[in-house]
Amino acid sequence: MLKKILATTLAAGLLLAAGGAFAEKTYRLRLAETWPPNFPIFGEATKSFKAMAEGMSNGRLKITIDSKNKHKAPLGIFDMVKAGQYDMGHSASYYWKGKDPNTLFFTSMPFGMTAPEQYAWFYYGDGMDLMKKVYDKHGLLSFPGGNTSNQMGGWFQKEINSLDDLKGLKMRIPGFAGEVLAKIGAKPTNIPPGELYTALERRTIDALEWVGPSLDLRMGFHKIAPYYYTGWHEPATELQFLINKKKWDGLPADLQEIIRVAMRTAAYDMYSQSYHASGENWDLIKKDYPNIKIKTFPKEVLDAMRKANDELLADRAAADPVAKEIIDSQAAYMRKVRAWTEISDQAYLNSLGN
Amino acid sequence: MLKKILATTLAAGLLLAAGGAFAEKTYRLRLAETWPPNFPIFGEATKSFKAMAEGMSNGRLKITIDSKNKHKAPLGIFDMVKAGQYDMGHSASYYWKGKDPNTLFFTSMPFGMTAPEQYAWFYYGDGMDLMKKVYDKHGLLSFPGGNTSNQMGGWFQKEINSLDDLKGLKMRIPGFAGEVLAKIGAKPTNIPPGELYTALERRTIDALEWVGPSLDLRMGFHKIAPYYYTGWHEPATELQFLINKKKWDGLPADLQEIIRVAMRTAAYDMYSQSYHASGENWDLIKKDYPNIKIKTFPKEVLDAMRKANDELLADRAAADPVAKEIIDSQAAYMRKVRAWTEISDQAYLNSLGN
Repeated sequence: MLKKILATTLAAGLLLAAGGAFAEKTYRLRLAETWPPNFPIFGEATKSFKAMAEGMSNGRLKITIDSKNKHKAPLGIFDMVKAGQYDMGHSASYYWKGKDPNTLFFTSMPFGMTAPEQYAWFYYGDGMDLMKKVYDKHGLLSFPGGNTSNQMGGWFQKEINSLDDLKGLKMRIPGFAGEVLAKIGAKPTNIPPGELYTALERRTIDALEWVGPSLDLRMGFHKIAPYYYTGWHEPATELQFLINKKKWDGLPADLQEIIRVAMRTAAYDMYSQSYHASGENWDLIKKDYPNIKIKTFPKEVLDAMRKANDELLADRAAADPVAKEIIDSQAAYMRKVRAWTEISDQAYLNSLGN
Repeated sequence: MLKKILATTLAAGLLLAAGGAFAEKTYRLRLAETWPPNFPIFGEATKSFKAMAEGMSNGRLKITIDSKNKHKAPLGIFDMVKAGQYDMGHSASYYWKGKDPNTLFFTSMPFGMTAPEQYAWFYYGDGMDLMKKVYDKHGLLSFPGGNTSNQMGGWFQKEINSLDDLKGLKMRIPGFAGEVLAKIGAKPTNIPPGELYTALERRTIDALEWVGPSLDLRMGFHKIAPYYYTGWHEPATELQFLINKKKWDGLPADLQEIIRVAMRTAAYDMYSQSYHASGENWDLIKKDYPNIKIKTFPKEVLDAMRKANDELLADRAAADPVAKEIIDSQAAYMRKVRAWTEISDQAYLNSLGN
């Protein structure tokens, strides 16, 4: 009898111990990022996500981050997370347009929303629902992953005074914006980042766009090109966190919430950090290279770009009802939210004079 | 002997059970907010903070929110949290300028930074350190608590064409902006929110400022005043979470991190929600009242306001070295970050034409 009591008591003790251990179970997540190790701002967003998630989970989440030198597939993030080779990814949605054309719309669109407008669309408009619709069928969850703020139109060796000046112009500008430029006669090319400086210096290309002062400074383009054009093609470039849905579904609800909130804060913070770094770096560039000229494309050029952009979007909308739904949502949302921007920040800034 | 083993085993079991219970200890936080119950946007920020913090802590944090109908002291939040009567508060830093003049600088300053600029200053410039310096001596921690986005300059019964039109103008405009207007001859008054509509309708006052379309719509001012002026006085109104430092120091590190990140996300989210609601509501106002005229104060008026503002800031800087440190930090930061805004969002928006 006593033996039986002892056994029962021991079992109860072990059960309680197991209960304690269960509550402390560690979940490991492996994240692959498109960026090289210690890449500024983008790479700080993943480190900040990891620190917040691990700290909030009191060690129940362990996250490892593999940079591109490790996994060797900077543009393979989508496939690797889909296949479960990695649990999470940090990249940009528009990189996957070859795999699913509707992933294009969740990074930034030419002549589209600014960052505050786009965050409002994601979180209080239809943005998150539409992104879910696109990624669901790939077994993936997608979340905003950090904003670069408005991207500059690029570094140019010569001034662009007319549409003719763009004809035949060789420019490194990838993605959808490249398609827009091709439509109006430019020659977009893609060149690996490590070769960009030399290509621009030796005039293998006439122009290139990268990001903005936050990341352009370290590339040194300001030393070899005199014109820095204001942006039109990526007014609110938002990176992306990707999660394998099966892995996600196996996590306890509190850890899901920790991951969701840590991603959200890391993303917003990256916007603030990009804004900060652009302010700091543009000040440095101006100080050392006071002759850099800030230019905005003439109206004729902007009108032609916008017309080409509208036509390309119309093609996509006609070919795919989901594309149409997203394009219509963004257009309808932007009509309202831009009217607010015009009477708030834009009116305020313009009223101050420059 | 068996009895002893049994006792030891039972003790071990209880210890393990206690260990489990310890890991599950519940921490209760009482938060007082300045707002009435179910106040839109501001009140949603506190509810969202509570939901995130409780969800991420898996029930270890229990947060109760008392609105002003409960604690009856909307402008007593600072004192109540300082005294430990409440653990947390949600309010606005500039409400405490009578208690400590340097709390003024952490909400929004006339002719100051926009929301993205100010978030960059808080989190990547000196903003958080300076705020800590001011609140430390009160035994309080202060964190950004949500942004309204750019506030409108207000609803006016008549058009302002010159500085003379402002002389003697009775306007509801509280705080530092009221001081600025008084300096150039207007008559700022403060009137309880519930009486504002009638006061403006009966011309007891000639003008008032509230927030922007996000919160102005429900007040109905657009039905009784034809001019809606663009903003100058609060370009980035940031609310505030306050925490009693002693209470904070008694929390485990993981719960501190959960609270910090939940506040940060709730604050950023409120900016997105304000932006969204302003877009939606401004669209509604325009539809129903198409004759509302958006106006910007003429240069003469803006110049006089700015001069008065600069003089008031110079007085504060001369009187208090900490005030000087904050004013200098904001001015130096804004010089750099605004140069970035000018070549990014502002140039982009202006290039599109309206």
